[in-house]
Amino acid sequence: MKKAVILLSGGQDSTTCLYWAKKHFDEVFAIGFDYGQMHVKELEQAQKIAKDAGVEYKIFNIQGLLNPSSLTEKTNHNESSKVNSELPASFTAGRNLLFLTIASSYGAGIGANEIVTGVCQTDYSGYPDCRRNTIDAMQLALSLGVGIGDIRIHTPLMYLNKAQTFKLAKDLDCLDVIINDTLTDYNGNTTMNEWGMGEDNNPATNLRVKGFYEAKEKGWI
Amino acid sequence: MKKAVILLSGGQDSTTCLYWAKKHFDEVFAIGFDYGQMHVKELEQAQKIAKDAGVEYKIFNIQGLLNPSSLTEKTNHNESSKVNSELPASFTAGRNLLFLTIASSYGAGIGANEIVTGVCQTDYSGYPDCRRNTIDAMQLALSLGVGIGDIRIHTPLMYLNKAQTFKLAKDLDCLDVIINDTLTDYNGNTTMNEWGMGEDNNPATNLRVKGFYEAKEKGWI
Repeated sequence: MKKAVILLSGGQDSTTCLYWAKKHFDEVFAIGFDYGQMHVKELEQAQKIAKDAGVEYKIFNIQGLLNPSSLTEKTNHNESSKVNSELPASFTAGRNLLFLTIASSYGAGIGANEIVTGVCQTDYSGYPDCRRNTIDAMQLALSLGVGIGDIRIHTPLMYLNKAQTFKLAKDLDCLDVIINDTLTDYNGNTTMNEWGMGEDNNPATNLRVKGFYEAKEKGWI
Repeated sequence: MKKAVILLSGGQDSTTCLYWAKKHFDEVFAIGFDYGQMHVKELEQAQKIAKDAGVEYKIFNIQGLLNPSSLTEKTNHNESSKVNSELPASFTAGRNLLFLTIASSYGAGIGANEIVTGVCQTDYSGYPDCRRNTIDAMQLALSLGVGIGDIRIHTPLMYLNKAQTFKLAKDLDCLDVIINDTLTDYNGNTTMNEWGMGEDNNPATNLRVKGFYEAKEKGWI
């Protein structure tokens, strides 16, 4: 009986991972985080997505715990980060590591040693905590420190580009959910265009549009 | 100009580390955590200790983020943990890893790559996240993931026993603070005995009494 905790934000990547987790584990628990993101609308979407998938969804309030970024303060997403000029303004230092730590503590309580996250280093955003080497180090720290034996962090999208992620959603029979319910828009626009996206011209939205067309062209979706 | 973030709980170990950090770094920022601990009294002590040391103190509210333990629920501290029967009931899964992650995100905002914590694997409590190998893995994860270059986690007490920690406090000229202001008592008793401790017979208190007598006997304090 393998239980998994899946980090579900309500975007394309984590929603695809939710369906991937449902396929690979016996019981799946979804969690999300309110960190003061301006696109908090994503949590409503995540709740709907989890409910439709028949999965429990728990939201942790972590407001005020992370150093601010353009995801939590009104700044241009295309500028550079205040903590490191080589990173984008949307980089929120420690965010994924905090998510994974809370996921593992929650997992300790419900007997889940598997964690699933949609981080990805292809189509690279520059976020250093989306790379597999960071995840590997974190997996080791959690396995040594959380006290429940080995913890595995699964990253099914790590080496896929967005077009391949669309293809995976098709293979997992959740393409409709991706198109209709997910929100890949840092500003939390609720008006979606035909690909289920807001039109705010942020890097994540642009990447999604490009991937959608590419997957269409290749006949994958 | 080296800045350090010190995890200050208001107990003997972290208070000794505060004075160690003041000696080794140019600027020191202390942080604490309200995680629903029943001994929340420690945070008041920590505030006083930081103020007297001329150090800024910031408290992060992380209630509800960690799986419960005997530190947050009324349980006998001498029983075993619900997440792992080989660990004590007071083990709070993910606690130190969460503290370190938040410390590093806070550090990213103020330009501090040094973190100081009083964890210790001598007089071993059984807490797996107090061991240097866990800390090493976490240091790697934070260095790779937080985006501000190498982060160092200093653990000046890692291989000291309690008597040696009393000696270190003496050497750092903060023995009076340890005796008068620190609180090593999971139940947050405010009535202290002649060694500055509550008399609740928990493992941490017993360790402190033993260490105090040993340091006295050896003429260290």
